[in-house]
Amino acid sequence: MNERLLTEEIIEVLRKAPSVALFSHVSPDGDCLGSMLAIGQALELMGKTVTFFNPDFVPAALAFLPGSDRIKQSLPDPKPQTLVFVDCTDLQRVSLAPDYLMDSTVVNIDHHISNQLFGHFNWVDDQASACAEVALSLIKQLGVTINREIATNLYTAIVTDSGCFQYGSTTANTHRLTAELIEVGLDLAFIHHNIFDRKPLAQIKLLQAALNTLELRAGGQLAIMTLTTEDFQKSGAGQELSEGLVNHARSIEGVEVAVLLKEVGPREIKGGLRSNLWLNVNEIAVQFGGGGHKRAAGCTLKVSLAEAKQRVIRAIEEGLEIGRNH
Amino acid sequence: MNERLLTEEIIEVLRKAPSVALFSHVSPDGDCLGSMLAIGQALELMGKTVTFFNPDFVPAALAFLPGSDRIKQSLPDPKPQTLVFVDCTDLQRVSLAPDYLMDSTVVNIDHHISNQLFGHFNWVDDQASACAEVALSLIKQLGVTINREIATNLYTAIVTDSGCFQYGSTTANTHRLTAELIEVGLDLAFIHHNIFDRKPLAQIKLLQAALNTLELRAGGQLAIMTLTTEDFQKSGAGQELSEGLVNHARSIEGVEVAVLLKEVGPREIKGGLRSNLWLNVNEIAVQFGGGGHKRAAGCTLKVSLAEAKQRVIRAIEEGLEIGRNH
Repeated sequence: MNERLLTEEIIEVLRKAPSVALFSHVSPDGDCLGSMLAIGQALELMGKTVTFFNPDFVPAALAFLPGSDRIKQSLPDPKPQTLVFVDCTDLQRVSLAPDYLMDSTVVNIDHHISNQLFGHFNWVDDQASACAEVALSLIKQLGVTINREIATNLYTAIVTDSGCFQYGSTTANTHRLTAELIEVGLDLAFIHHNIFDRKPLAQIKLLQAALNTLELRAGGQLAIMTLTTEDFQKSGAGQELSEGLVNHARSIEGVEVAVLLKEVGPREIKGGLRSNLWLNVNEIAVQFGGGGHKRAAGCTLKVSLAEAKQRVIRAIEEGLEIGRNH
Repeated sequence: MNERLLTEEIIEVLRKAPSVALFSHVSPDGDCLGSMLAIGQALELMGKTVTFFNPDFVPAALAFLPGSDRIKQSLPDPKPQTLVFVDCTDLQRVSLAPDYLMDSTVVNIDHHISNQLFGHFNWVDDQASACAEVALSLIKQLGVTINREIATNLYTAIVTDSGCFQYGSTTANTHRLTAELIEVGLDLAFIHHNIFDRKPLAQIKLLQAALNTLELRAGGQLAIMTLTTEDFQKSGAGQELSEGLVNHARSIEGVEVAVLLKEVGPREIKGGLRSNLWLNVNEIAVQFGGGGHKRAAGCTLKVSLAEAKQRVIRAIEEGLEIGRNH
């Protein structure tokens, strides 16, 4: 089907809908919330009745998003005819059973290549760094003038999902759309403060504990850190706060691969693996029944932390050796 | 004088010059080197003879900049008629005496509001997030097509000087120019790896040492860390590697002001102060004979580390108290 036609159909569906319910995914992030709110706010400016749903609560760091206080954890009642799913690869991502869609008109707005195209109308652009890039196109085609609230939501979505314009998904278009949003008149200092400068103290304590275990191996090509259940308890941190810590080890000069091993239970060790330029860490993770991508993968080992560390180091040293000889 | 006329004059001067020497500032950063190299490469594409000067060596992390191996620490000999200074507020920044400019045609390209306008022709745009924004305008007006080398130099300059598009100096124009550079076809992963993922191990060790001293005061509004001369020795780090560490403390939820105290000699403590939203740390630093800006300031105390810590905490607690009551 012609892509332009499809886009026009979605615009047509939304123009005609008097009432729209919007949905975003579990463990919400800046992109799914910002994009959902922005689309909803645009539809409201067109005079429509709008509701927002997310299965989970809005994280404290994203509570500054304009309209986030209107996001409900209960399903819309009554359910309107038109349902819009934002940044969701499939219905499981939003904790809904397939029959929830029955008799509804379903619009699916996303940027994941793995999107299941579960809507009657699907607008999925896997070249977009954030779903917000798709949302901004949609809003412009709806003919709505972007206001500060919408721009704040979309800017936050892009900055968080593109890793501050550093991830490989960032394109010239990402920057061009960002320029358009900034021109609306954003309080960038306020937004950046909320996104980047509100780390829980427990997260810094966890970083401290991890750094205290930092070891370099394989002539400095491998950096490994560990966290025990005691470290999590002492710092008062949940598992989710260890997210990203491995990058401190990855960013050391000369390091090709970095590992963070977390003791999540007795004889249950979760490993997060990251590589910089060439080592395929997916192949390493697969050896332990895990997987992921070439530069980021994970696995779980049912052994002690010391044993897990030994095994993972051995596998990586072998991988580095084999890679070298190719 | 009409700005357009002035710009046209600079273009005219450079068009006519058969040979140009370019200069950038001491303690070189991504912006001064990237902008200088880009302008020089553009002039070379126009058929001119070009030399590059910097008083210091190129930092290892910036050695990937195309052309950086051509930057000399010795002055050009023979000295050409036309000298172009890039990202330099004044001649001290480039370690030159005023008489070096005698009988020369001096072009001054910068973005610092404090620029001394020491050139015969000055193009200073204090609205630019990086000198590279000015350099890109200049190169486009010279009629040179941006190639990959030039784009890599300018992109690196913008990313480093705008703090990955997070600093307050970032504008819609910054993003628009960045889009133009990316469209030339950049290896963003390679550039980002060089800029962000080549931290000396000593820097991570210094972070570890600093985090181990982290204390929250004033009900969590003040975060303070210290580094002893022993910490620097043990980690093998020079003073310059402590740059930016204070931001780890500043980014903790609820923290308004963060301090890093460094023992740089016996009874000689350097303090770096950062605030998030409202406290004027310049006023705090001034009390100890230092200064800076509202959100970033520094001072030196000629006392023991313990004494310095006590005094700085007291001054900040007072500042927070006074601020609260206003």
